Amino acid sequence: MLKKVLILTSFLFISACGADNATDQQWRALDVNNTLLLTLPHGKVVIELAPQFSPKHVEQFSGLVKKSFFDGTKFYRVIDGFVAQAGPKDGSEKDKSVPILAIEGKFATDKNWSFTQVQTDDLFASSTGLKNGFALARDNNESAWLTHCPGTLAMARGNEADSASSHFYFVIGQAPRYLDKIMTIFGRVVYGMEHIQAIQRTSVIEGELAVDSREHTPIVSMKLMSDVPKDERIIIEVENTESTDFAERLVKRRVREHEFFYKKPPPVLDVCQVPVRSRLVIGDKG
Amino acid sequence: MLKKVLILTSFLFISACGADNATDQQWRALDVNNTLLLTLPHGKVVIELAPQFSPKHVEQFSGLVKKSFFDGTKFYRVIDGFVAQAGPKDGSEKDKSVPILAIEGKFATDKNWSFTQVQTDDLFASSTGLKNGFALARDNNESAWLTHCPGTLAMARGNEADSASSHFYFVIGQAPRYLDKIMTIFGRVVYGMEHIQAIQRTSVIEGELAVDSREHTPIVSMKLMSDVPKDERIIIEVENTESTDFAERLVKRRVREHEFFYKKPPPVLDVCQVPVRSRLVIGDKG
Repeated sequence: MLKKVLILTSFLFISACGADNATDQQWRALDVNNTLLLTLPHGKVVIELAPQFSPKHVEQFSGLVKKSFFDGTKFYRVIDGFVAQAGPKDGSEKDKSVPILAIEGKFATDKNWSFTQVQTDDLFASSTGLKNGFALARDNNESAWLTHCPGTLAMARGNEADSASSHFYFVIGQAPRYLDKIMTIFGRVVYGMEHIQAIQRTSVIEGELAVDSREHTPIVSMKLMSDVPKDERIIIEVENTESTDFAERLVKRRVREHEFFYKKPPPVLDVCQVPVRSRLVIGDKG
Repeated sequence: MLKKVLILTSFLFISACGADNATDQQWRALDVNNTLLLTLPHGKVVIELAPQFSPKHVEQFSGLVKKSFFDGTKFYRVIDGFVAQAGPKDGSEKDKSVPILAIEGKFATDKNWSFTQVQTDDLFASSTGLKNGFALARDNNESAWLTHCPGTLAMARGNEADSASSHFYFVIGQAPRYLDKIMTIFGRVVYGMEHIQAIQRTSVIEGELAVDSREHTPIVSMKLMSDVPKDERIIIEVENTESTDFAERLVKRRVREHEFFYKKPPPVLDVCQVPVRSRLVIGDKG
């Protein structure tokens, strides 16, 4: 018994000592209050929200999710290689019931702001990097923004900057970086991306043969993970992009030492082509 | 009757006059001898081969397809955001029966070689562009190569440059451009990409929880379209990337004039983010 207590004590002691290094853990648990469980007819998807970057959008979206706002809503605009977009019928009472949001496309940064830098070579920004698992870009010391990558969750809008309300999209193809800063990104898929990519396209081929709306993929349900009964939750951990382990992986990815690379590629890293791994702690039972 | 003949004659005349402008048609029919129909359990996929860029790979692969080599083969390595790879069991008699190919990762070009240029700004090459619907990159006047984009079909290989035989992969995520030149690309998906993206991942999450091989997605059949009974063919036309219409679309894509772009993005075009549209002429009956 004493031995047990001693072990427990020393464990606590070690944990306490390690507190300053807490961010150097390789894996990070997601906050269930900040995670969505999206159930599609063909599979389950887990999304991490980004309140630290887009607080107003996350607040409003989470509120809608809590009211089951999106259950039964369809992906009505799904363009292969681009986006899968969902939301209530345009101009419907439900659509009009949601307040308009001011865009949160970028945020001011100062010299003290930092991220895990991926590249200084980037065609859209002075540098790119990752923070809290999200891909970002920045302009010198003035501003930073979440960048569009496959799996990005962002709000759709009208022609005005401040016109988003409830319609949203997932990026399903090569990163449309030209939408950076002029759209509000507020989350990313951390599990089940293959189910997002399998959403029914709304035309067979771009610009042709519109698919009957009855065949559009519906959202069975979208819930905050904290509202999902415990035995139905999918609990995910994601790589801590601030860890030394992750930094080392970035170096290995930039300078390919494996003999498979009989000619070395240029030391270029596309921020959207850097995997931030997830791992399943509990679930998915199908 | 005379009127009919006259109309027909003038039509032929117009066609003949237009012969020099044959490449300025907006759409291009695919050659059925150079097109694959891949049937997966959940949908059909059409692939255009690239014998003009990778002749030996296309010749060998087409020969295998004609022998139904891939029917029943499984996608045994499917990594979300990266590739879906298939081929016979490593080291099996079937696997060893196929000759090894010399890599066709790039080809020499001279000053007369041209493509429809997309960008001179590119982190991996001196310029990028499109030719015959395929994305390419080039180094000044010396060489050019097909680039990895979503939907690219390429041969897998061992650590040696010249070690590919029958294993192949589709790119299913953000373009892994670091594989350019050191792999042989020999085709691209022109229809049904959503079915490629829905192929069962072989681990639930990268590096974790391998999925039982019995659940791996099989190839129901892979045929040359010319070998498919006529009433089961899927006939596709693709945008002619050498047309003036396509060149105009590139300009519009680089300089966004639509009011949706209340702030103009930088005039950057990622060659893998330029859609080359397809249209369905005949099929798909499901």
